[in-house]
Amino acid sequence: MSTAITGEILIGQRAIDNGQRSLKAVNPATGETLSPDFAVAGPAEVEQACVAAWAAFDAYRETSLEARARFLETIGDRIMDLGQALIDRAVAETALPAGRIEGERARTVGQLRLFAQVVRAGEFLDVRIDPAMPDRQPLPRPDLRLRNVALGPVAVFGASNFPLAFSVAGGDTASALAAGCPVVVKGHPAHPGTGELVGRAIQSAARECGMPDGVFSLLLGGVETGAALVQDARIKAVGFTGSRVGGLALVDIASKRREPIPVFAEMSSINPVFLFPAALAARAEELGKAFVGSLTMGAGQFCTNPGIVVALESPDLDRFLKAADSALSAYVPGAMLTPGIYGAYEKGVQALEKADGVQVCARGTVGEGPNRGRAAIFSTSVSNFLAQEALQHEIFGASSLVVRCKSIEEMRQVAESVEGQLTVTLHLEESDYELARGLVPVLERKAGRILANGWPTGVEVAHAMVHGGPFPATSDSRFTSVGTLAIRRFLRPVSYQSLPAALLPESLRAENLSRLPRLEDGKRLLP
Amino acid sequence: MSTAITGEILIGQRAIDNGQRSLKAVNPATGETLSPDFAVAGPAEVEQACVAAWAAFDAYRETSLEARARFLETIGDRIMDLGQALIDRAVAETALPAGRIEGERARTVGQLRLFAQVVRAGEFLDVRIDPAMPDRQPLPRPDLRLRNVALGPVAVFGASNFPLAFSVAGGDTASALAAGCPVVVKGHPAHPGTGELVGRAIQSAARECGMPDGVFSLLLGGVETGAALVQDARIKAVGFTGSRVGGLALVDIASKRREPIPVFAEMSSINPVFLFPAALAARAEELGKAFVGSLTMGAGQFCTNPGIVVALESPDLDRFLKAADSALSAYVPGAMLTPGIYGAYEKGVQALEKADGVQVCARGTVGEGPNRGRAAIFSTSVSNFLAQEALQHEIFGASSLVVRCKSIEEMRQVAESVEGQLTVTLHLEESDYELARGLVPVLERKAGRILANGWPTGVEVAHAMVHGGPFPATSDSRFTSVGTLAIRRFLRPVSYQSLPAALLPESLRAENLSRLPRLEDGKRLLP
Repeated sequence: MSTAITGEILIGQRAIDNGQRSLKAVNPATGETLSPDFAVAGPAEVEQACVAAWAAFDAYRETSLEARARFLETIGDRIMDLGQALIDRAVAETALPAGRIEGERARTVGQLRLFAQVVRAGEFLDVRIDPAMPDRQPLPRPDLRLRNVALGPVAVFGASNFPLAFSVAGGDTASALAAGCPVVVKGHPAHPGTGELVGRAIQSAARECGMPDGVFSLLLGGVETGAALVQDARIKAVGFTGSRVGGLALVDIASKRREPIPVFAEMSSINPVFLFPAALAARAEELGKAFVGSLTMGAGQFCTNPGIVVALESPDLDRFLKAADSALSAYVPGAMLTPGIYGAYEKGVQALEKADGVQVCARGTVGEGPNRGRAAIFSTSVSNFLAQEALQHEIFGASSLVVRCKSIEEMRQVAESVEGQLTVTLHLEESDYELARGLVPVLERKAGRILANGWPTGVEVAHAMVHGGPFPATSDSRFTSVGTLAIRRFLRPVSYQSLPAALLPESLRAENLSRLPRLEDGKRLLP
Repeated sequence: MSTAITGEILIGQRAIDNGQRSLKAVNPATGETLSPDFAVAGPAEVEQACVAAWAAFDAYRETSLEARARFLETIGDRIMDLGQALIDRAVAETALPAGRIEGERARTVGQLRLFAQVVRAGEFLDVRIDPAMPDRQPLPRPDLRLRNVALGPVAVFGASNFPLAFSVAGGDTASALAAGCPVVVKGHPAHPGTGELVGRAIQSAARECGMPDGVFSLLLGGVETGAALVQDARIKAVGFTGSRVGGLALVDIASKRREPIPVFAEMSSINPVFLFPAALAARAEELGKAFVGSLTMGAGQFCTNPGIVVALESPDLDRFLKAADSALSAYVPGAMLTPGIYGAYEKGVQALEKADGVQVCARGTVGEGPNRGRAAIFSTSVSNFLAQEALQHEIFGASSLVVRCKSIEEMRQVAESVEGQLTVTLHLEESDYELARGLVPVLERKAGRILANGWPTGVEVAHAMVHGGPFPATSDSRFTSVGTLAIRRFLRPVSYQSLPAALLPESLRAENLSRLPRLEDGKRLLP
């Protein structure tokens, strides 16, 4: 594996230099510019990538399950082959610690391997057969067979905050490729070199596995590049992780196409954490310290960052806050991902500082060097929280608002008042269960994941994971972007009625049916 | 079961007369007005129905699977109890033959019973468990459990053309209730008395089964009533069957809400039928006659009506058309569903008659009485079809356009040029398979159902059915409105992480897990 970074655009197996090298990578920890300059994809390159993806589609979606699984695994292998060069470049481009990047690489490669298992297991095809009943009265039943097919080429928008796991070969790409969809990635401009390295690893894996040219392309650019990509008629679905403004803009573009297409946008969440009385009484200090650990992880730049804490006013809450204050003063902030993200964070914190009825509980230390966000914990009353919608807005970074409740009923009111969330967290002891029981149905309506006695940061890639939730957490609460269910976003069912075996897809022919999990006349059968 | 029709609005267990009795039922076969006058729901009634649905939601979604299944079955029983009164009223309001209405009732009741089976089987919950791995390195894995939960109250828009099966207790209502969603139906104003009878059957079943008040409401009205319903914040999803204009209007309203919600709109399809050479040679006359049977069924008022026929120019095609002409001249048209539908049909046929390069192949007889659409078969060349987008527009009624191809390549071009479809049909013999093979991948991209040697009208309610397809057939090709998969539209996954058993939903507790189909650590296990 070569680890040279050329700044070219990757379209299928080609690397293209269109001369528009206006994008520079910056080390946010130092402000220094990293070489090389990167080519920004214009309309011509967007079109070339989409044409290539479309040309690859019919062949790629009918690759055997084994061949597709091997492709996913090979991508993982080629990413590992990048070795230290990938870690170094990602650290330089994101200011995230090397340990975090190594963990994220493991997660990314593990995710590709998990989707390879999903592909091999074949359950995602949702094969169903309702055999013909020629003698049924009053009308015969025809032979009906169903399988899921891939939607078509998918546009994936890399996120700033996970340069590997939610980026070029992240969960959106892995699940779309697993579904049988070619992928055109619009890489995040905050880590273009990391993106290119991973993109070349995918190119290499595609070549090695004999995948059709165009199964993968990587474009860099800004809003215009992204808009052109979503507008291209050959793109049939979009996966996005980022801001509410960005996600809604893509949803809007997709809905105005001649053929509207689904967009799964993971956007905005403040991830409420509910502290119940007995838990606070038993372990206020421990909770305060752990809260700050979650709040400041990755400089607070997690979709699942604990942005509000909801607790009963009490001396135990004061102990919690004191412990948080103490932990915060020991926290040395790392640089945030980009000057833009840092600027938005500072603006958000300043607005919160000035908001009516909001008190500062604790501020973190001032970091040395550019782009260091000063962590912040604020507090406010329930009535104040309910009166000001702006207090619910996500501040991307290490800022959190403690909502002081006078009663469990007020905790319930806060729960009812918040918008849709990726996660809600409960800290409780057995004696809190009775109080919490009434809250769970409310929280189920609000969030994609409910967790107890842990912290929302850290999203396991698993079969039972949901990284999704009601609007504005995502644009469609019926899906998830993490975990094996993420593949569902990119599949649609097709029913085949009385089709001769010669024309049926292989997986639905009599001789192959028993190799796949299937629903036969309503009965679940396993291979 | 009382079979009195009062014209009142049904909100939960109440029947309300708001004095706004401006809607009259009309017998389209005679033009006579049927009594009584019906109350049109205004903003107050829309709100009451949504408030009631919201109040019922948390209780209804946690009813036991057995109780919910019994409720669905009881609705079916109470519909059957309506007996001849239901048949008579539906015939009077739609001009459809009694035999058709009886068949549709059987389908409707069968559909409710099928969803009862789906509920009992529990697979729709998609239960998943990834057990904790406390010793995993470098980080432990928490206990993760997942189930699907109901989205919330669903607005269902009844269709004009299926007064029972796609209406008050039709597939949308059955699948939403099965998912655990309360339902507010906006009944179609073309058959208000039929709707009220069925609505009262549901009321009665809800009472008998002890379901929460508000689990079901039935509103009548026009565009404003429907818009108010979709705008109500308590409504969390929409099911619609109807026109492209109507469906797109609802999608637009839903997308502009403070909290956008998913709309499944089944809208527009011309259901191409491909006639392959050997099939035409072997059975041109039989095909021509059967084609007219499908075309004129229910006065052509089917979503799956065969609106275009694609065939190779040949003497066999002429034989086919001659047989169709002969069958059409023996067809006595029934009245269409409403004067509005009849008027739109006539306008569409007149436009086609005048379109460049379009020839009349056959016209049906002129019917006696109002609202009789004269059936029509037109033909045109491929180049003409490709040049005029308007030739692809659905004409709702018994009109079809034969596209004459000079080669198989031209058949493929037509297939590539059409928009998304509910169905595509192939008529072929074994010697056609080779020609058809290249077409199947194209058709898979275009339609939700591919059928061979049959006709698209007649949609089996089954596990392997798809009544859906790419835009504009529906607003989201990942779902279907017929068949057991229809339930997926109204469900979202929730993940529970490390939740104490006392707070877990019953279905996810250790002692109940083995009763449900589930994915345990990626392995499929059956009860």
